[in-house]
Amino acid sequence: MRVLEQRILRDGKVRPGGVLKVDGFLNHQMDVELFGQLAKQWHAAFAGDNVNKILTIEASGIGLACIAAQEFGCPVLFAKKSKTKNIDGSVYTTRVESFTHGNVYDVIVAREYLLPTDRVLLIDDFLANGAALEGLCDLVRQAGATLVGAGIAVEKCFQPGGARLRAAGLRIESLARIKSMSDSALEFMD
Amino acid sequence: MRVLEQRILRDGKVRPGGVLKVDGFLNHQMDVELFGQLAKQWHAAFAGDNVNKILTIEASGIGLACIAAQEFGCPVLFAKKSKTKNIDGSVYTTRVESFTHGNVYDVIVAREYLLPTDRVLLIDDFLANGAALEGLCDLVRQAGATLVGAGIAVEKCFQPGGARLRAAGLRIESLARIKSMSDSALEFMD
Repeated sequence: MRVLEQRILRDGKVRPGGVLKVDGFLNHQMDVELFGQLAKQWHAAFAGDNVNKILTIEASGIGLACIAAQEFGCPVLFAKKSKTKNIDGSVYTTRVESFTHGNVYDVIVAREYLLPTDRVLLIDDFLANGAALEGLCDLVRQAGATLVGAGIAVEKCFQPGGARLRAAGLRIESLARIKSMSDSALEFMD
Repeated sequence: MRVLEQRILRDGKVRPGGVLKVDGFLNHQMDVELFGQLAKQWHAAFAGDNVNKILTIEASGIGLACIAAQEFGCPVLFAKKSKTKNIDGSVYTTRVESFTHGNVYDVIVAREYLLPTDRVLLIDDFLANGAALEGLCDLVRQAGATLVGAGIAVEKCFQPGGARLRAAGLRIESLARIKSMSDSALEFMD
């Protein structure tokens, strides 16, 4: 079994309503030694793809993205949640719908840091409905950059995001793939 | 001159109204190789203090905190901006006033991840008026943990936060210390 799947079994908690709580090591308290192992797995998967920029979204993707960037020897760019309008045209903007929080928000990146020459790897902690990841794909498309793929920590394979984005051509490497979840059991993909 | 001060002179931009723009390498696009150098400086300063937890605040402190945590061999905990009330008493809450954005917000950490036995180093990208750092100090105090000190990337020494927090007993190690700033010049402390 994969290292992140083992850790989820040991320290993760399933809460009523299909919520997987991994905030002891992934997205509130963060185990950077574990992050180093995950980063090596993403690097092994994308080592031949000449990644020169990692794009993530605030807040819980940032730690994973920074540790991964050390493996790839490239900078991280994080998309910011924004309440202000793009008045001067200096940013790319996309709209993300959060199913978890039941709201819609804009995320932005500065145009000057996402270039047509960039080869971009997306990194995020979760993939479920795929709204955040789809927003990041849209930012890369707007910039005319090359989208190499996405490194995800935990994919909830019983939610539709992964299948939809793979069907659209996105290469996704998820390091823990949850097949099903109930209050009493958690099953990973083979 | 220090490595971060050199980088600010090279790539930072001063905008009207005393805004220092360092988003090309510090807090939007993030140069993780530079972060590694900063992490080593913080570790040199606090190596003898048995730090076992790093506390930061979302979003732009997270990358620096994670790279620093690799040096200290400890986890990172990041305080989250929250709109929800602390109904079940599972979190410590403090109020932070943002001078930059002209608003007030609550930040929280889960009680289970900040313990009386913890020896906590605070990490953040900026220190100006000190409101965010003061909020982190308050969370550590509520938990009854030991506050070892704070590692800051850029301190605006002409604003009152650093002096006030040092007078209150906080040890602060800032890696770039700006003495004064105008539209045409930027001066560092000796």
